[in-house]
Amino acid sequence: MAERSVTHATFTLERTYDAPPAKVFKAFADPAIKRRWFVEGEGWEVDEFTGEFKVGGFERSRFRFRGGQPVRNDTTYHDIVPNERIIFAYTMTIGENRISASLATCEFKPSGAGTQFVFTEQGAFLDGLDNVGPRQGGWKELLDALGRALKS
Amino acid sequence: MAERSVTHATFTLERTYDAPPAKVFKAFADPAIKRRWFVEGEGWEVDEFTGEFKVGGFERSRFRFRGGQPVRNDTTYHDIVPNERIIFAYTMTIGENRISASLATCEFKPSGAGTQFVFTEQGAFLDGLDNVGPRQGGWKELLDALGRALKS
Repeated sequence: MAERSVTHATFTLERTYDAPPAKVFKAFADPAIKRRWFVEGEGWEVDEFTGEFKVGGFERSRFRFRGGQPVRNDTTYHDIVPNERIIFAYTMTIGENRISASLATCEFKPSGAGTQFVFTEQGAFLDGLDNVGPRQGGWKELLDALGRALKS
Repeated sequence: MAERSVTHATFTLERTYDAPPAKVFKAFADPAIKRRWFVEGEGWEVDEFTGEFKVGGFERSRFRFRGGQPVRNDTTYHDIVPNERIIFAYTMTIGENRISASLATCEFKPSGAGTQFVFTEQGAFLDGLDNVGPRQGGWKELLDALGRALKS
């Protein structure tokens, strides 16, 4: 590793889902549901998805896209308010290189019969290996996948 | 709890210490040294200071100021580059209430014979129970205490 560096950046994404907060929250809290929208998808091979949804709990997912390098997400849960809020920290690692560490806040607010969902990521992008643009793009795709999962 | 809320805020503090990066890093990595500047001090009673300084490791400190409410810091280490960088997430809890979750980045850079130390906190302050001003003030005091510890 030639030079260490850290770039800090924050972004927020908002969605309105046509499902009540308890159902949207459950899509994060229930590992079987989360696995479907969070790591599965065409072209993705899931090598591991294990964890404990509780404060202090650790969750790990390992996957590859079309036979590419192994990618790892290591998540620790820091705050859980049922049906209202989840705060977790996570790192992303590609091959042997940790490319980011982030704090993510999920807020679930009633909006009519549905949910106003607010996702805020406060990221530290490491050693020039990642940056906020692709990360924000990745979460936009995930929140679309979550929306589809809520309809099924 | 009447109303849940999250306020996100980021701050950076910089210090130049008259000690090489390896010595400043060690003041975080060695629990006996860290305990002295991080939780001990006049008026503070330390009830617990335990943990493991490694990626994925968990550290807990519990203390009270002049017989006041119990305060708890729960830290998880997410990235460690010896003598160069530490990234950890931590929550603060007063009594039964979690008041914040934060991601903290410590960067240790050589500066002549000393160290340019950069501390960045990306915080989520919860339910109106804390905010960035006192947090930044608390870290200013801690980084002063670290400076004194490096001289002893």
